[in-house]
This record gives sequence, C-alpha cells and structure tokens, in this order.
Amino acid sequence: MNVRLPLAFLSPQFPSVRLLATCSRRVCYSNTAPSGVQLQSVTRLASTTSTCKVVRISSSKPATSAMSVPTIDRDSLDGLLKRRFFFAPAFDIYGGVSGLYDYGPPGCALQANIIDVWRKHFVLEEDMLEIDCTMLTPYEVLKTSGHVDKFADWMCRDPATGEIFRVDHLVEEVLESRLKGDKEARGETAELVDGAEEKKRKKKVKEIKAVKLDDAVVAEYEAILAKIDGYSGPELGELMLKHNIVNPATGGPLSEPLEFNLMFETAIGPSGQLKGYLRPETAQGQFLNFNKLLESNNTKMPFASASIGKSFRNEISPRSGLLRVREFLMAEIEHFVDPRNKSHPRFPDVADTKLRLLSKGTQQEGRTEVTEITIGEAVQTGLVDNETLGYFLARIYMFLIKVGVDHNRLRFRQHMSNEMAHYAADCWDAELQTSYGWIECVGCADRSAYDLTVHSKRTNEKLIVRQSLAEPLTVEAFVVELDKKKFGPKFKKDGKKIEQFLTSRTQCELEDLANELSEKLKITVDVEGVGASVEIEKDIISIEKKTRQEHIREYTPNVIEPSFGIGRILYSLIEHNFWIRPESDQRAVLSFPPAIAPTKVLLVPLSNNEAFEPMINELSRLLRRAGIPAKVDDSSATIGRRYARNDELGTPFGVTVDFQSVQDGTVTLRERDSTKQVRGTLEEVIAAVRRMVGQGAISWQEGTKGLASFEAASE
Amino acid sequence: MNVRLPLAFLSPQFPSVRLLATCSRRVCYSNTAPSGVQLQSVTRLASTTSTCKVVRISSSKPATSAMSVPTIDRDSLDGLLKRRFFFAPAFDIYGGVSGLYDYGPPGCALQANIIDVWRKHFVLEEDMLEIDCTMLTPYEVLKTSGHVDKFADWMCRDPATGEIFRVDHLVEEVLESRLKGDKEARGETAELVDGAEEKKRKKKVKEIKAVKLDDAVVAEYEAILAKIDGYSGPELGELMLKHNIVNPATGGPLSEPLEFNLMFETAIGPSGQLKGYLRPETAQGQFLNFNKLLESNNTKMPFASASIGKSFRNEISPRSGLLRVREFLMAEIEHFVDPRNKSHPRFPDVADTKLRLLSKGTQQEGRTEVTEITIGEAVQTGLVDNETLGYFLARIYMFLIKVGVDHNRLRFRQHMSNEMAHYAADCWDAELQTSYGWIECVGCADRSAYDLTVHSKRTNEKLIVRQSLAEPLTVEAFVVELDKKKFGPKFKKDGKKIEQFLTSRTQCELEDLANELSEKLKITVDVEGVGASVEIEKDIISIEKKTRQEHIREYTPNVIEPSFGIGRILYSLIEHNFWIRPESDQRAVLSFPPAIAPTKVLLVPLSNNEAFEPMINELSRLLRRAGIPAKVDDSSATIGRRYARNDELGTPFGVTVDFQSVQDGTVTLRERDSTKQVRGTLEEVIAAVRRMVGQGAISWQEGTKGLASFEAASE
Repeated sequence: MNVRLPLAFLSPQFPSVRLLATCSRRVCYSNTAPSGVQLQSVTRLASTTSTCKVVRISSSKPATSAMSVPTIDRDSLDGLLKRRFFFAPAFDIYGGVSGLYDYGPPGCALQANIIDVWRKHFVLEEDMLEIDCTMLTPYEVLKTSGHVDKFADWMCRDPATGEIFRVDHLVEEVLESRLKGDKEARGETAELVDGAEEKKRKKKVKEIKAVKLDDAVVAEYEAILAKIDGYSGPELGELMLKHNIVNPATGGPLSEPLEFNLMFETAIGPSGQLKGYLRPETAQGQFLNFNKLLESNNTKMPFASASIGKSFRNEISPRSGLLRVREFLMAEIEHFVDPRNKSHPRFPDVADTKLRLLSKGTQQEGRTEVTEITIGEAVQTGLVDNETLGYFLARIYMFLIKVGVDHNRLRFRQHMSNEMAHYAADCWDAELQTSYGWIECVGCADRSAYDLTVHSKRTNEKLIVRQSLAEPLTVEAFVVELDKKKFGPKFKKDGKKIEQFLTSRTQCELEDLANELSEKLKITVDVEGVGASVEIEKDIISIEKKTRQEHIREYTPNVIEPSFGIGRILYSLIEHNFWIRPESDQRAVLSFPPAIAPTKVLLVPLSNNEAFEPMINELSRLLRRAGIPAKVDDSSATIGRRYARNDELGTPFGVTVDFQSVQDGTVTLRERDSTKQVRGTLEEVIAAVRRMVGQGAISWQEGTKGLASFEAASE
Repeated sequence: MNVRLPLAFLSPQFPSVRLLATCSRRVCYSNTAPSGVQLQSVTRLASTTSTCKVVRISSSKPATSAMSVPTIDRDSLDGLLKRRFFFAPAFDIYGGVSGLYDYGPPGCALQANIIDVWRKHFVLEEDMLEIDCTMLTPYEVLKTSGHVDKFADWMCRDPATGEIFRVDHLVEEVLESRLKGDKEARGETAELVDGAEEKKRKKKVKEIKAVKLDDAVVAEYEAILAKIDGYSGPELGELMLKHNIVNPATGGPLSEPLEFNLMFETAIGPSGQLKGYLRPETAQGQFLNFNKLLESNNTKMPFASASIGKSFRNEISPRSGLLRVREFLMAEIEHFVDPRNKSHPRFPDVADTKLRLLSKGTQQEGRTEVTEITIGEAVQTGLVDNETLGYFLARIYMFLIKVGVDHNRLRFRQHMSNEMAHYAADCWDAELQTSYGWIECVGCADRSAYDLTVHSKRTNEKLIVRQSLAEPLTVEAFVVELDKKKFGPKFKKDGKKIEQFLTSRTQCELEDLANELSEKLKITVDVEGVGASVEIEKDIISIEKKTRQEHIREYTPNVIEPSFGIGRILYSLIEHNFWIRPESDQRAVLSFPPAIAPTKVLLVPLSNNEAFEPMINELSRLLRRAGIPAKVDDSSATIGRRYARNDELGTPFGVTVDFQSVQDGTVTLRERDSTKQVRGTLEEVIAAVRRMVGQGAISWQEGTKGLASFEAASE
C-alpha cells in the first residue's frame, strides 16, 4: 500500500501553532509512505481518538501492544467524576455551553495542587521569574505573533439551517459512518463501536445505514481517514464534492470550507475601536516583558520566566471532555539562552534520567515503538538537540511522575521536520496515553529567536542581551553617516523617520544602497510615513564599509519553551490513577500521590456517638495547624462505606476514632491503596501523616515505622 | 448649608452592583442633608480620590484627623514599584492599553502569597468548597443576574473627534479646573494640587485658566462636586448644558450621556450567535452550581463555597493604577445559610475581636469617625445584623491584618439603607486608607435569597434545601387538582404548559383563582406559549384550601457574600508597608509580613571570593528543600547596597556568608526592619527562618532566641 500518512497534528492549544508562519497545520504531512502500515488499525484508532492530537501511525509489528487503548471503564470513571463533582459542564442549569467546564471542589483542589507542585518544581527550584500578564490582548500583538492570520480551523455552513460544521470532523464522521454501514451490510459487527458512547458524543451522523460499498470505495475512504488531519481547506472542499458529503441531518448542501479564527474577539474601551482578543497562550506576555525580566535578573543570562493562567480557544465543535475545551489553564516557561551556548549547568544532575523517546527517525519509518534511554545519551548522540532542551525534557518527566503520571503511559514524541517551522531547532511533546489515545500534554520546543525578533521588528524596541566581551572583537561593517547640517534643514520633520529607516537597514541592504550611491550619486528609498521616492544626495550621506572594535556583543536570545496544558494533565492522571478494587463490590479508587490528592486525611468517628467528638475536633485542629487539608465524615454510613467514598476522591489517609481511642488516646491510620492500618497516639499519627504528605514525601512503610499494625474488621 | 450629599458610590467591581435591580448606582443618594458638613474638605478630597469608591462625607469635627491623606511619597513609591517590576502597564512596548497591568516577579509572588494565605485562612480553616468556574459566560446568565441591564456607566461622545468621556469624570474635572482657575485669579494657591501628579494622571483638562468666578457659582460648583457620583445620566446631561461643559481640548460640543455596559462582549462558537461576556465577578458560577455544592456537602447546611479568579470590567477611562483596572483578580465566598437561623457556631471564637466600625447612623449624621468595639457587642446591639455576617467581618479583619494591613488604616463602613437593594439585610465594606483615599477592598453583604431565586425562576431548576422536620408541620394551603381524563384530551400538547403555569402560582394568586372559579364556574388565564385567554371549566379543575402534614421543609438559603478585590488589597498593603529609612540615604523599605513577602531570604556572600560559593549553594539547597523561597545576590555591590536593594523588595531576612563562616561554619542572619543581626550555624539559622516564615509565624525576638547577637559593620 502506498499512501501518504499524516504526521503533523498541530494543536492550536499548544505553542507549535506559533510556528505556522511557514508551516500550516492543514498542509503538513510526509511525502513518503512508510511501508507495512496497517490501515485497518489506523482507521480504528481514528474513530475513537480523532478529537485530540494523536499519532495514528502504526507499523505492522508493534501496533497492538504500543497502540492498544488502556482497558479503562470510561463509563464508570465518568460516573464517578460527575457524581463527586470533579468537574461538570458550566452553566448546566442553563443547558450548558459546550467546551466550557467548571471544576468542583475535588477537581479544583487537584488543579491547585498540581499548580503548587509545578511552581515548586520549576519556579522555586529553578529560580524562575514568574509573571502574571493580562488575558485581554490587543490586535496588534497577536497580528505580529501570527495568531490573527494563522490560528484557524476550517468550517462549513449549511445555508438553509445555519448549522456549522468543522470540516475535517464532518468528513471523518460521514466516511466512518458509511464504513460502518458497509460492515453492517456485509454482516460484520463494527469493532469498538459502543452505542452508548456514540450517543454521548453527540455525533452529527445520527443513523447508520446498512449500505454495502465497493471494495475500492472502502479502500479510498480508509485512505482518506488515515490522513484526515493533513488536508488543507480547499482539499477538504474537493473531498466533499467528490464524495457527496452534505448535512447528515437534512441532506442539504453545504458551503465551501471557510477559515475560522479560533480566538475570542472583543473590543477594549468604550469606543469599540480597539480590537482585542482573549489570549490563546500565555507566552506572548513573557516575550513582551523581556527587557524588564532581563533587568529583574540583574541582566544575567541565561534565565527563565514562567506564567500560569487561563487561555482561550473558540473551538468550532469541542469534544472529548477536558481534553479539548474553550477555556483552559496553561503553565508556560520561556527559558532565554545564548544561541551560541545551549549547555545547562545542571544537566549532569539529570543526565541519568531514563526517558521513553519516540524519535522522528522512528516515525519516518512508520513505527511508533519508544526507545528508553538516558537523556544524557540522547543529547550526546544528537537525538535531542541540546543540553538545555534535554534538561527540560528530564525535568518535565520528573514533574509528571511526581504528580502521578504512569511512566509506562508517558512518551516523548519528537516533531517531524515538517511539523516544525524553519527556525525551530527541535521540539518534543510529552504525550500521555488515555482512553482517548495519546494526548499531547506538554510541548517542549526550541523556538530560536523568532518571537523576540518579530515583536522587536514591529515595535522598534530592542529585545536583546548586551554582553561585555573579555576581548574586543574587530568588526567590519557598512556604516551610514549623515551630514546633519544639510540633512536637518532639507528633510525637516521627516528627518527623524528617514534616519530611523537608514539605521535599521540590514548589512545586505546597506551594501546595495552603498552601490547605488556610488553609481548614481544618490539613493532613492521608500520610507513609511514620508514617501515612496525619498532621494538623498551624496553630499548629505555616506555609506561605507568600516572597521571597528566592539567591546559589547549584542544578541537576541533563543527561547526554549516548555508549555503545559494543566487540564489535559489533570484528566490524564485521573485515568492513570483510576482502578477498581475487585475484591469489594467494584469499588473505584483514585490513587493520587498524597502531594496532589484533593484532601489528605479523612477523619471518621466510628459512629455518631458524642464521645468521639472532642478527639475528632482535636485532630481537625492539629491537622489544620499543620496545614494539612482534612475532612470529617461523621455521616451515619458504615466505616467501610465512608472509606470507599473517600477512596473515590483519592484521599490517601484515613484516621478512625473508636472506643479504644476514648480510653487510651490512640487512633488508627489507614492507607488508601493497601487498606493497611496502623495504630498510634494522635501525635504519632499526625507526625506520620506530615512525613508522608510533605515535600519529598516518603512511603507508607517508611512513614509509619514504629507504629503498631492494626487489623480492622472487614471494610 | 443644606445640600444633598452622595452616600452611595457603588463600584461595579464589587457585588453591590448586583443589587441594582431596584437601586441604580446612579440615583442613590440620601434625601436629608446632614448638618455641619464642611464642603471645602469634601471638594478637596474629591479632587484627589474621586477615582475610587471613597466616602467623602466629613463633619466639621473629625475631618482633619479622620480624613487626612497618609503622608506617603507616592512618586518615590511609584518609582520603586516600576523599577523593581512589581507591576507595569501591559503591552508596554506596543504603547500599552490603559487599565491593563502585568505583574512582574515580586508582584506576582506577592499576589500568589496573598492568595495562599487567603486559601488557608478561609477555604482550609473553614472547610469551604472551592470551585473554579469559567470566565466566558453566556448572555442568558448575566441577563438573569441583572448585569446586562444594570452594569453600566454614563459616557458621552464628541461627534467631531470621536473622543469618549465618562460623563461624571468629565463634569468633575471641568468644574474642578474652573475652581482652581478661580483660586488662581483670587491669588490663592490651590491646595493639594501637585503639578507632576496632575500630568501623570492624564487629565482631560490640560490647562487651567485663571478666571474669577462669582461666589454663587463657586458654591454651586462645590455643591455639584460633593454629589457628583449621585447624578443620573439625564441629570449629568442637564449639568453639561447648564454649565456649558464641552470637549476641553477642542471646545466642541458633546453628545447627550449614553449608557455604556461595562462587560466585555464576545461570541462563543463559530456561528457568532451565542452572545457571551467575560464575567464581571466570580459569584454567578457559585450560584449556578448550588445543587452540586449542596450535594458535595452531603446536603448539610450551612456551608460556604469559594472561588478565586479573574474578572473583567470594560472601564470607560481607567485610572488610579491598580485600583481601577479592566482585568482583576477576585476571591469570593458565598456562605449559604438558613434564613431562619443566621447564628454561627464559631462566633464565640471571634466575639472579642475589636473592629473599627463606621455605622450608617454615624454617616447619616454626616460624620465619619469610627467606633472601635468588639464584634460581639456589635452583633448584640444589632449594629451588625447577624452572627454569620459578624463572624465574617471578624475573619476578614484577621485576614487583612495577617497579610500586612495597618489596623489604623482599616475601617468597616456600613452601607446606607439607600445603597442597598430592598432584599439585602446588611452590608459592610472593609475600606483601606491609601494616598488615593479610602478604598473599598472587601465587600461583605447579606444578599438574602435573591441570586438563587432569580436563577431558579429563569431555569425552572429548584435551587433549594430540603430539611427533614423533627415534628411534622400542619400546613393549610390552596391546592389545584385537575381531572386528567378530561384535561389531557381537551388541551392536548398545551396541557403541560398550562399545568406548569397552574402549579407555579403563589398562594395569593390561587386564592384569586379559587374565587373566580366559584363565581364564574371557570377561570381564564394567560399562559405563555399557549394564549392570553385559556379557559378552564369547573368540571376539569378544582382549587380548594386543604390541610396537610409536611415532613420536609423546603427553603431557598440566604447568601452571605464576602468579596475580595485582591489587586486593591495588594496595592493598599504595599502603601501600608512602605517607609523610608531616614538615617541611611533615603532608602525605601517594604515591611511585608514574612508570609506574603515575595522572597523570604536573601543570601549574600561577603564578596565574590570563590571560598563562599559552597556554603551559598548549600544554603540554597537547604532552603529549597524546606520550601522557603530564597535568592542569591552575588553581585559586586557592597553588602549594604545589596541589603538595601532587597529591603525594597520586602525580603524579611538576609543571610551573609563571610570569612568567619568559612572557618567555623556560622553565618549571620539579618532582620529587614530593625537591621539587627544574629549569628549561628547553618542549621540554627535555617531553623530560625523556618519558625519565622511558616504558618503561625513568630517574632524575631522569639524566633532567634538562643542565637548570639552580631554587630555588623555599618550598612
């Protein structure tokens, strides 16, 4: 089979979209076809995971193991998340707005704890400069960054009903439904098709008709589906015509694909004339403040800034729960570095960290198996471009493991050359495997000097580093000199603009001008705001190559940008920590690490006997003073039921006050995952909890050393 | 003098604006004139503080002491805040956008620390249910809450230039400038007028002409200025006509005042038809999620939810730095309580807290002196409406003191009856005194059942509490009964609507219908979506008074809402903690409490001698492990200079590594405010720091007990 496979699935939620000056998210796919590709598995995966950035390439060999969807009962998990209000559709009682979610108490605490770990792990540990910039952003800034022109998806409209479809999703759904109908007609059951799930996902195609297709048509549909994310808007339009894709509900014709910018637009101020957007990422604020940040860092290089905050994306048709939403929390780092020296002083500390890497080479061969090697080796062999990038990959890995991601469901996927812009040196995504497929949760790109350069050019504000040179440098360069006595009177108020124009020319341009001047004895230039044919005579201007000594080196730093989608990480780690306790009545457990668990300790009196109250209150007080979030459950449910309810919330520890407690002042301490219990005095138990939830938390075995084991009645 | 004084200065940034269904912010002012008012001081204050919600009433007696602006050198403070990048205009290199600010590293850390203290003080300590709701909000929600209709200011436009003015600000400025011109013409110097400040504040009136006014005109202008916030739009329009107020720059005429809604509008989704806004407050998300929150609390009452997040307000002409901005951080609590029982179990714990209260009674007498009494007494005497409200006032006080607010520059001002909506029981603002005047920083209102009721009514979703009654209640009420066999066939598809209409009638309405039915043997009702004259005959319907036993009581909870403007608190406490060290070269100090200081410890090697490096690194490592933010300053500046630089940032402790350190392993520890130093081993010093920065932090004296005092060479 010789088909073109899509390799680039750029998600505008992530920084790669800023690269799109040269690389449209709709037209990137590889030119060569890997051999041995199982189209069947590609298509199957597409049907369940197409809503997020996933990689659908699979070779004939590792397909089943590497690509298999984790066996997670999503209905059961979704039920838990809704019932315990981890999150829920926003404006639910008003019917909801798709793509907008509210986090309830456990989800909100989980998010706050992930952010807290992030801040300690990155900002505090690395001495980063955290800033908080506004979400409202004026047009000009996002015009310069490229978002106004490039941050878009393709949509089409039904002129009769006014309905709007995201074109790639529509083509995908219609062709998939035809393939399913074909299977039905052939008497095969479509795999992985779950009626309930179908209904929940609000498919546009409501009804699947059992119509047999020609074998050639089946093959063609499968080939299209395999590269559905790779088509440009006009190409999607051709597909719609060729395959008669219309409004599935009415059969009515649809408009040609139109580009739809994904930013939310608004007007700032009362005149309505200052157009603005809600930021699509937090990065721009960091670039714009570069000079102030450098100053804050005593002009020392390298350094990093960081930002945590909401960003916005007006999805055409949001789906997949928290994975593709219209308002989301990001945490982004911009590490500014000398382009001539991308080593990192702390790299040796992380060099031995083993990462699961999916290189572009492997992908180019149409395979997806990961290689597990140390980051030290990856940088040494050139697989990862430089030490600083490698350092951050390792640090991202450590962060993800700290918050509870499963090592085996985490991989770093390198961007293919055609996924990246020409200026980017290297880019890796941390992808987490969920029941929706492999999800891009952290991007880590070396963006070179692109962002600072475009803003600097647009604003005429220098965004550079000035480095004192130990030994002066001899530089040969074209230099413009003006005879001010003649220049001023001749050009009057335009003088400043013309002078600025001349001083901001590149060396190449100056060389051309120097040639023009020596040939024609004058130059003619086009100066914005002055005129298209400004003439300057040889008696006023000289442009000559001169040699000078430089004691200062000026350079635009490069940027290495780790960018975290907190909501995606949060959802993925919920899946990674979700399991069912088989022995006891199918009870669900969320095994969050103590550091991110919404509540750390559950306090349960054995019954609602008043005798237990003083000790419960004392425990509450002591835990509060220690800064450890605890909850009391004094409801009339059995102890076992109450523990089960808190296992669902991921509460790692439980303290029970029973009749023995009232007599001898001891309480029991229970561990969520093992349900093991120990017994000790209030002080001993709180000290143990404190050891197990704090910074650099230790294990249950270590934390409860010295406490007597306790056999509870069955839960 | 008998004038009407403005008493209501509702700020849309704060929740009181949601009361405006019945009380427009533009028309509330008292009907009676307090006597003994010094108009002069009123006007003077207005000229410096009018940009924020301030109370401008002052009696002849306490005026000077109570109303004097703190002697703070704002130029010096502003310089510091800019130089050290606490905050700066956003998009600075693009020329900035007024009302939008970015927080640099120290400002961002300060904000994060205030939020951290807030979360511990309220959410953790009070077991609140924190949630995180979206900022994007659909039209319907804000239509119901009243924001679409009432969240507005008055503006006018210059048709010639397109310029837009906020009308009250313009009238104020023009009349003030005329009064100043009059003073100049009379040879008096205008008080409190600072040329530099004038320039900075970007006044519309650029030039003050020395023109003498009639005494009567002066009095009239002063009277207008005293109540400038109290005029309605049309009234402002009349003032503009009468006093010939035109565009100060051109002399051109202006349009009539128009209402301008202060919410940022956007469109959600690709069709552009789902109109939405950026939320003006975080409260609505909490109301909408009431049922889920009640469920999360095991249906127990009372309980509180909380939310921290950005809100937005499209100011016509933002000013006063961080005090009136277009995007700001709020923290809001909604405490849901049984309207029949507003006692609070923890009230005894706070009853002895002394607060500085400015009651409505005092204000009605035209006075502003505060009464310092315990909250216990205030509730007992009925000055504060109920225990829960009182409890929160005390808790707000404790929070503000904890983050570094000056007790003497904090007062709680009660809203006047006509500042509040008819349904509100009581409302108090925590106001902080700054160089801009008294600023409303926290609002604390008892909002009754208003919000839940309107959303419930609009969505037909019950937002209530169901309480099991210990003893059943006998209830007599009109009951509607339908003969379904006849009703169904007669009304067919309209049946449901008519039934819903009938069951949602109040008792009064049912009584009227019962009378109509017995008189006319039928009723005629107007049912939305069915018709204006729906007739129902007696053979189909009965409406009779019946007696029944109720075992469940259903009620809509009341809401007590403490609402915090974090940016305003942050700015105010910067002012409260700013002072100049007189003895040493006018060095500025920010005396933040350790808990909120951006950096806790400064590490300084005596010089850049390499011998100091290992100890500095070890200190960094130990502090990082202890979770204590520290910074190294190894620049070549003198120790004294480096300390001074960090006093400016509010860093409370400094550790110096000197030659003795290298020999005996001891270091010195310096306290910022007193500049006192002690000496001890690394471990001793870190233990002391840990004691002084943690939860329930202790004083320097107590924290450094046992460490030897150290006399440093002069700073």
